[in-house]
Amino acid sequence: MYNFNFYMPTKVLFGPGKLSELHSEQLPGKKALIAIGGQSVKKYGYLETLEKELDTAGIEHVLFEGIRPNPTDINVMDGAKAVRENGCDFVIALGGGSIMDCTKCIALMAANDGNIWDYSLSASGGKKTPAHPALPIVCITTSAGTASEVDIASVITNDETQEKTGIFFPSMFPTLSVVDSNLMMSVPAKLTAYQGMDAFFHASETVVNINHHPMAEMFALKTIEYVAKYLPRAVKDGNDKEARAYMALANTFAGYYMMCTSAHTMEHVMGSFHDNLIHGAGLIEIAHAYYDFFAEKKASEENMIKMAAAMGVANPTSGKDFIAALDKLISEVGCSDLKMSDDGITKEELQLYPAKVHEVLGGDITADPLPLSDDDYLTIFENAWR
Amino acid sequence: MYNFNFYMPTKVLFGPGKLSELHSEQLPGKKALIAIGGQSVKKYGYLETLEKELDTAGIEHVLFEGIRPNPTDINVMDGAKAVRENGCDFVIALGGGSIMDCTKCIALMAANDGNIWDYSLSASGGKKTPAHPALPIVCITTSAGTASEVDIASVITNDETQEKTGIFFPSMFPTLSVVDSNLMMSVPAKLTAYQGMDAFFHASETVVNINHHPMAEMFALKTIEYVAKYLPRAVKDGNDKEARAYMALANTFAGYYMMCTSAHTMEHVMGSFHDNLIHGAGLIEIAHAYYDFFAEKKASEENMIKMAAAMGVANPTSGKDFIAALDKLISEVGCSDLKMSDDGITKEELQLYPAKVHEVLGGDITADPLPLSDDDYLTIFENAWR
Repeated sequence: MYNFNFYMPTKVLFGPGKLSELHSEQLPGKKALIAIGGQSVKKYGYLETLEKELDTAGIEHVLFEGIRPNPTDINVMDGAKAVRENGCDFVIALGGGSIMDCTKCIALMAANDGNIWDYSLSASGGKKTPAHPALPIVCITTSAGTASEVDIASVITNDETQEKTGIFFPSMFPTLSVVDSNLMMSVPAKLTAYQGMDAFFHASETVVNINHHPMAEMFALKTIEYVAKYLPRAVKDGNDKEARAYMALANTFAGYYMMCTSAHTMEHVMGSFHDNLIHGAGLIEIAHAYYDFFAEKKASEENMIKMAAAMGVANPTSGKDFIAALDKLISEVGCSDLKMSDDGITKEELQLYPAKVHEVLGGDITADPLPLSDDDYLTIFENAWR
Repeated sequence: MYNFNFYMPTKVLFGPGKLSELHSEQLPGKKALIAIGGQSVKKYGYLETLEKELDTAGIEHVLFEGIRPNPTDINVMDGAKAVRENGCDFVIALGGGSIMDCTKCIALMAANDGNIWDYSLSASGGKKTPAHPALPIVCITTSAGTASEVDIASVITNDETQEKTGIFFPSMFPTLSVVDSNLMMSVPAKLTAYQGMDAFFHASETVVNINHHPMAEMFALKTIEYVAKYLPRAVKDGNDKEARAYMALANTFAGYYMMCTSAHTMEHVMGSFHDNLIHGAGLIEIAHAYYDFFAEKKASEENMIKMAAAMGVANPTSGKDFIAALDKLISEVGCSDLKMSDDGITKEELQLYPAKVHEVLGGDITADPLPLSDDDYLTIFENAWR
């Protein structure tokens, strides 16, 4: 038995069409800064729907555009300035993980002095504790991937110092989030697969994690069940409303309690050498090698059997049943051909990777089913390389 | 796909020994009213532990004693008066469901004018909406049965008008709850069984409910799994720490999302005629007849198969597999001998029960696997009678 806390104060509205109920919710202020990234939320009409909801509710709003993928400290500070200049008293993120991450930091900096980097734990960061709580945050997610809508975490990039940092404070929990799969129908097939598998790996790392957590495991196995069942459908037909709805749910469920292991860290190592690597794709590229390393050693048999069962394998008996189901799923979502070499990763550079595992952000590298040495990391990277 | 909201703002500390971590939590005030019922929380040292935690945290506290089982409007108003007279700014419930229910109403009335009955929806109630939110509430549960620690509901009795009413407002969510199974070790075997089966039925009614809710079902099936596995052990040996811990978890999990059906209402009908009937015992007495009514008609096959699987039945194929597992569980927790007639219920009076189903508090009588007529209710009551 593992002692734990459960704290998830964010109210979440789940389901297709939920954005259209926003006007009847108690919103946490009178004037909102709506933060968006590119033009797609305009193109597909999501922004218009949101603005109409706010108008109906009698909430004023201003638009803040142009947050980039991998948002920067400059995006954050520009947003915070816009909040102050426009007299907004809360913020609304409309977009995917990058937009939600950036908006949560905008809310923090709108209420606090200095620069966002003053509150970063990175090498050049100021490591300060904010004097004031963030302004209230509303997240409306347009992707099923990061689950940023139900956590306090943000990842922000500093171009100048070439650092990426995690920023998280308790007041950065969204007050309200909308998980409306109607806003995810336009995500292209490849990205749907990458984001969906990211959610899957949030869950599978939680299940194999040596820290057993009954509640996290419950959420994670449900995520695994949904992804195995619905992601192939959502990838095959982006208009499959039921598949999109369950993938949206799967992603948020995985986010309620995410306990990542070295697998996430290893992907971040790959990404640190190759800027353009998409996170979900990187995770897929190392997945077989990572999990099979433990299946070969029978190091996580019980957990892998649970995952195989959740994926619909009848009467699974060993970790290898999970490996087979994982390979099948990766194939069904059209990702069997993903190759590290296609992302520019050479076999030679893998030698540099194990040392970097100890430097980058990522999962808990002490939580794998077996402790991994640098030699083990190299073995897994080499087994994964094609 | 069912659209739904998830909102559970209460921070919950789970696990044996968690009460001893209370001092390191951010408590929602400077001076607490500690509300208790009888003497057992003194006898077993729980109150002393709590007071020590508050002293360590520098929180002042006063004691309010004597809340009775099935707490009354008078208990509530006395408590609210004590809060005001002592200048308390938050309340702490230390006890089972009755104590938590009463304390939540004390917090409401300490912040609002008039009498608690002004806010009741019962026939003689004032049906008012409170002008102010309740004071912050902390719940420390000493039983695994009602899950009052994670909801906004209270049941309060008015002796004068002979009414029982449900009172619930959004501000009655506890801010913080402690689910520490070390405080449940002293619950006698019979009561352990009744409370544990109450949690089971909260879950099983949620699973058979015609309103499908993916999140509620997830919590409910986990509850069913835990109760089937651990309740027989907790009943057999009250000192089985692991069994007590998982039963505590099962109860709270069931509480996160409770969607009760007619089964709960039918038990409340029995209780309305027989004051001394224990809720969990009444539920056990009608369980076989209620579920088998639907199993015979194959009206909830898929859901009952899921529940049977959660209870450890290998490859269940029909609702009858759930019925068999339910009978076995009731037997394993020593409750096979429970008889309505032993509670004073005569076969003749059952004729009066169906009409009363439409009057008492309880579950959603439109949510059973099949709609039940008054004749159906009578059939189930008569099949259950021994």
